[in-house]
Amino acid sequence: MREKWVVGVDLGGTTTKLAFINVEGEIIEKWEIETDHSDAGKNITANIAKSIDQKLKEQGETKDKLIGVGMGSPGPVNYKAGILYNAVNLPWEDHYPLKKNLEEAIHLPALIDNDANCAALGEMWKGAGNGAKDLVCVTLGTGVGGGVITNGKIVQGVSGAAGEIGHITVIPDGGAPCNCGKTGCLETVASATGIVRLANLKLKEEGLAEGLLVKIYEENGSITAKDVFDCAKLGDAACLEIIDEVAFYLGLVLANLGNTLNPEKIVLGGGVSKAGDILLDKVQSYFDKYAFSRVKDTTKISIATLGNDAGVIGAGWLVMNEQFQ
Amino acid sequence: MREKWVVGVDLGGTTTKLAFINVEGEIIEKWEIETDHSDAGKNITANIAKSIDQKLKEQGETKDKLIGVGMGSPGPVNYKAGILYNAVNLPWEDHYPLKKNLEEAIHLPALIDNDANCAALGEMWKGAGNGAKDLVCVTLGTGVGGGVITNGKIVQGVSGAAGEIGHITVIPDGGAPCNCGKTGCLETVASATGIVRLANLKLKEEGLAEGLLVKIYEENGSITAKDVFDCAKLGDAACLEIIDEVAFYLGLVLANLGNTLNPEKIVLGGGVSKAGDILLDKVQSYFDKYAFSRVKDTTKISIATLGNDAGVIGAGWLVMNEQFQ
Repeated sequence: MREKWVVGVDLGGTTTKLAFINVEGEIIEKWEIETDHSDAGKNITANIAKSIDQKLKEQGETKDKLIGVGMGSPGPVNYKAGILYNAVNLPWEDHYPLKKNLEEAIHLPALIDNDANCAALGEMWKGAGNGAKDLVCVTLGTGVGGGVITNGKIVQGVSGAAGEIGHITVIPDGGAPCNCGKTGCLETVASATGIVRLANLKLKEEGLAEGLLVKIYEENGSITAKDVFDCAKLGDAACLEIIDEVAFYLGLVLANLGNTLNPEKIVLGGGVSKAGDILLDKVQSYFDKYAFSRVKDTTKISIATLGNDAGVIGAGWLVMNEQFQ
Repeated sequence: MREKWVVGVDLGGTTTKLAFINVEGEIIEKWEIETDHSDAGKNITANIAKSIDQKLKEQGETKDKLIGVGMGSPGPVNYKAGILYNAVNLPWEDHYPLKKNLEEAIHLPALIDNDANCAALGEMWKGAGNGAKDLVCVTLGTGVGGGVITNGKIVQGVSGAAGEIGHITVIPDGGAPCNCGKTGCLETVASATGIVRLANLKLKEEGLAEGLLVKIYEENGSITAKDVFDCAKLGDAACLEIIDEVAFYLGLVLANLGNTLNPEKIVLGGGVSKAGDILLDKVQSYFDKYAFSRVKDTTKISIATLGNDAGVIGAGWLVMNEQFQ
């Protein structure tokens, strides 16, 4: 039998990533297109279909090469119905029939899931998860996203809101406001934005007067999460305190996820996960403190290995899973 | 075809509950036997087998009436291997081959799982879960146990330690010691034992001098969790404070479980769950405060309906699930 491919699509508010992926999960070709917000997003699925047709032609292939299209989208998704409930960074109306529209545009079977879930599936299939059937992925980026896999399947929950790990409450009283409307969510302390917020608190409310962070702030007029990690590596006391705080909340949440699910791996991805040992050693030490003994001994914390490719690979896996299991 | 039965067994440190259950999940007959700790527990499986044979005879049936035996056991279980890792209240050595020994004693296929998992499956099949495929059960008894069901299957985790909801850390610093070796676990504040501990704190360390709780303590020399709820219902301020504290921790944990798994139902069982609205209204209100909005709208908190039968019914379901799915 001629080797077939799947298409993995990672839909973003600004750009959409696409890839042809073979049945082994290897990327044959990947590319990006702009996400067109005009006309209430009417062109998005058509553009994806056109772009796939064009790339197929360039590869000297025809549509029967493709098994189907899997797509990760921001926002909560009804996987079975193929409906995107709502996505704040996309121009579509709520309860958008994304699967149906995608299938009509591209004339291939399509499956959609939440983008964080797809990243988790990608890491399970080809990344740090390494085939683990019980896996939790936590993406520490601008926000904090999550994907939970149990018994080899994504946990969707009753309304697609499973895996909202960024909205686990870690500061029950007096926490900072979160975009979700609550306060004290993990996202308010462990995302890049949250780390900047903690740094600004030190600078502005606690009146931090000396040290590397102050210097950078005076030079640049602002602070990034990377600045905080860089300064901590140089021994800056205030930054080490911030990192300890971030690691405490993150370690506590990961331990409690471990106590609930005892996954084989907890995979950390996103920009903040690249901080390296200065963050991860502390996260591990708080995890060890708060995890049930058998969980501490068996649930491993790993760093995501697929980077930006996790989304398209996991989206491709949606199609593989539907076809070959 | 003649109706078949399964046997559900709920193994406890003191007594073992057994039941014949039909394929609809209805109990045909239930009974109990003593759990015999002599000779390092060598008689336990033989006694179960003998007892089943005898009850079959009384029912005028023979062994071919039975599809198999499902058993819930305290302690972490390797479901696939059929091994009980260790159970503090049973006399067996660690890594006890319970499935194999049970099958040899009874000459029927057997399956074992953790007792809290079986209770969760029971509630899913015939109780408050009402067929929900995504379900978390939390048993508030002497300790706090848990069972997590996603996509219709128990989450075992990589080493059988999933569902250790009682050992979710709720007081990261300065919490009370827990039997598991950690401090500040949910069990230290939301179990019957934990509630008594909180009451004793008020009486002894905070020097509570008046009120119903003091009166009961002076009369009986001790306090039970039921006393705390009874006094709260009569308006005792100290008891209302204790219940608010318990509800806060419980509501926070349930909300964070909701944010992680968005289950259709969270089912509360065990003695403490019988406290009624005085506890549950407060738990719901903290849940609403800490749950992600879509989770708050879709994940429902319910009270377990099967009581002590949940364990045998869920144990029977293990066999049903293996046979008919």
